[in-house]
Amino acid sequence: MTVIGELGEKIDESNRIALERILNSDPVLVDIQTAGEWLPDMHDHLVLHAGPPISWDRMPGSTRGAVIGALLYEGMARTTKDAERLAASGEIEFRPNHRGGGVGGMTGIITRSTPLYIIENRPYNVRAYAGVLTDRLIFGGYDRQTLDAVRWTNTVFAPALKAALKHLGGVNIKRIQAEALHMNDEMHNRSNAATALFSKAVAPALVEAVGDRQVVAEILRFWNQTPSYFTFIGMGACKATMLAAADIPYSSIVTVMARNGVEFGVQVSGLGDRWFTGEAAVIDGPTFPGYSRSDAERDIGDSCITETAGIGAFVMAGAPAILRLVGGTVEEAHRHTAEMYEITVGENPHFTIPALDFQPGPVGIDIRKVIETGIVPVIDTAMTHRSAGVGEMIGAGMVTPPMKPFQDALRAFFETYAG
Amino acid sequence: MTVIGELGEKIDESNRIALERILNSDPVLVDIQTAGEWLPDMHDHLVLHAGPPISWDRMPGSTRGAVIGALLYEGMARTTKDAERLAASGEIEFRPNHRGGGVGGMTGIITRSTPLYIIENRPYNVRAYAGVLTDRLIFGGYDRQTLDAVRWTNTVFAPALKAALKHLGGVNIKRIQAEALHMNDEMHNRSNAATALFSKAVAPALVEAVGDRQVVAEILRFWNQTPSYFTFIGMGACKATMLAAADIPYSSIVTVMARNGVEFGVQVSGLGDRWFTGEAAVIDGPTFPGYSRSDAERDIGDSCITETAGIGAFVMAGAPAILRLVGGTVEEAHRHTAEMYEITVGENPHFTIPALDFQPGPVGIDIRKVIETGIVPVIDTAMTHRSAGVGEMIGAGMVTPPMKPFQDALRAFFETYAG
Repeated sequence: MTVIGELGEKIDESNRIALERILNSDPVLVDIQTAGEWLPDMHDHLVLHAGPPISWDRMPGSTRGAVIGALLYEGMARTTKDAERLAASGEIEFRPNHRGGGVGGMTGIITRSTPLYIIENRPYNVRAYAGVLTDRLIFGGYDRQTLDAVRWTNTVFAPALKAALKHLGGVNIKRIQAEALHMNDEMHNRSNAATALFSKAVAPALVEAVGDRQVVAEILRFWNQTPSYFTFIGMGACKATMLAAADIPYSSIVTVMARNGVEFGVQVSGLGDRWFTGEAAVIDGPTFPGYSRSDAERDIGDSCITETAGIGAFVMAGAPAILRLVGGTVEEAHRHTAEMYEITVGENPHFTIPALDFQPGPVGIDIRKVIETGIVPVIDTAMTHRSAGVGEMIGAGMVTPPMKPFQDALRAFFETYAG
Repeated sequence: MTVIGELGEKIDESNRIALERILNSDPVLVDIQTAGEWLPDMHDHLVLHAGPPISWDRMPGSTRGAVIGALLYEGMARTTKDAERLAASGEIEFRPNHRGGGVGGMTGIITRSTPLYIIENRPYNVRAYAGVLTDRLIFGGYDRQTLDAVRWTNTVFAPALKAALKHLGGVNIKRIQAEALHMNDEMHNRSNAATALFSKAVAPALVEAVGDRQVVAEILRFWNQTPSYFTFIGMGACKATMLAAADIPYSSIVTVMARNGVEFGVQVSGLGDRWFTGEAAVIDGPTFPGYSRSDAERDIGDSCITETAGIGAFVMAGAPAILRLVGGTVEEAHRHTAEMYEITVGENPHFTIPALDFQPGPVGIDIRKVIETGIVPVIDTAMTHRSAGVGEMIGAGMVTPPMKPFQDALRAFFETYAG
């Protein structure tokens, strides 16, 4: 057998292990903790963000807006100008969520008092976090309404949910995801079913565990009015799953894809936490009334951990209802899913697609296959505004990530293992 | 213009009116009342049932079981034997739910203290009812567990929901149905999404309107554990819709399809409340473990009011997840929906099918088209056991109703209007 043949076998075997760990993962939402409680090295001047590393001077407008909002909320600054000055001063450490084993939606800004969903992947004794984020803030808002909303999330919502989770002993997220995939969710940009399933699963415990009836009603009303609510929890479950498949020598499986609005980055199991980056893509899709394409920031957020774990746009064939949001036809949705089978190493029998006669979804992106086929992972995503302060989603669409990070990763992979 | 041509025009015009009334219907769940409160001529010895008229001696086992259970629950009999004797004595009046403007799932047995969902079709000032039925009873059970479950439904669940509905001012059912159709429900045998949507919409009001926290938690838990819960509410909304299209002279639109386990019956708008019947079909589909096809009763229940109103199996192309329950392939599901466009007079822009690029669903069965094409309406349905006392669903499948009722109806139609 040739050296290359031997290496190929080693990679295949490692990828089989990675796949097995992905398929056997069983993420459970077990607790809510603040970033200060959960992250051992959290400090006042640390701001966590989405995507690969980025400095203040390169940050897009929506991320700057979210940083300003977070610094104001934390009492680190009293005015917008103060917050900007502090952010630019070099006294603030900016760090990717992924470095701490977590994810944050959109700009993904997390500071000390931000609550986190703690998700345990029990079979592998791995825990990931996902920010319990407030929409207005992470879309770059920092006005009074934004800070009030953050206050409600942090001081009313999070403690109540924490109590309900304790009462329940945790909520199995994999089961909700599997069921929601049978209900037209792809769970990156459409989590309507998962939100409803989560709400109805937790509601009884919320009633039993939380004494203040008005708080219970407020939270139930919030869930009822926020179809996208589940998305961050699902992201956390995907992160907990992919953590179990990380750091396997010789594995060429992608364990992280994430964007910061400027760069799209990937990490590969056999290459640890090295980032391979390329230019973040322009999002192709419709904007909401009042906005146009020229308002939209480039691709941003840790949310494509969903595609990394085999849901999101990968299972779009089973979620045609999302086409109203991101554009495109049912035929295109089927093509997206069909193509993802070409760049993945396996199929997930737990995540099946009714519209394809219950075919298991494609999972486990192999950087070798991406390069061989020339097919990059497909992503559907939400748009933020390119200016700070807007604080809302302005549209959604499809993303074709750059090929460069995959090329760079494959080069580094062979340097590492065939060197 | 020929006489036939003129008649055809009159029919088309009446069908346009019927269609318009179906499309503009807006059913809202406004209240819960007991059958004794709601039905002006309800009396102790009246038992309402599913489908066209049927006497005790012809009733299938599951219906007999439900009648026995209902008579025991109402205190009309103290033993099973007593109940059977009373039912056979001629002292009990059996009457179809449809005669009173309502529907009941499966055997559809409703007696004086049975709670009813009251559904108002506001634009047409029409109210329909659907039984707030207890699964074990309406599948023919009558044991202690069944009667305890009925007691909980009637004395705990129904009053609490009534209070929540009053607090809310009603729940718009059309909107829930439209959304659930985008979540893989067809709402005859799969209401998972609609149940979750209903639960999360009503939960806040339940918390605010009902003082007993344990009752609130029990009800929320019941909804969480009963994915099919919404089905009866949806049936009531369909009945309220079809009532608005009933009794339009010259309209050949089917306003009722219903089965009693022995006969399948239809009513036609221009022919009032006359029943046209044929032999109820054998259900084609898988049985649950422990049961076989030979255990299954023939087609039964008022639930195909869903297909009559253009959902259920008519929109199966958009609900492939149900195939696990009823059998068949995605291709067959698409064929079922495609065929229904051939026997209907319109499409419902409020009930769209994402899997068909948001094509509006087929609606308004025209008996002329059924005869012309030889295509009967397709129905998916649940199976009851042919013996009294089993008290649970034993399987599900597809139904091809008999052609005879449609032929008889068309003959009567021309006798009436071309005579």
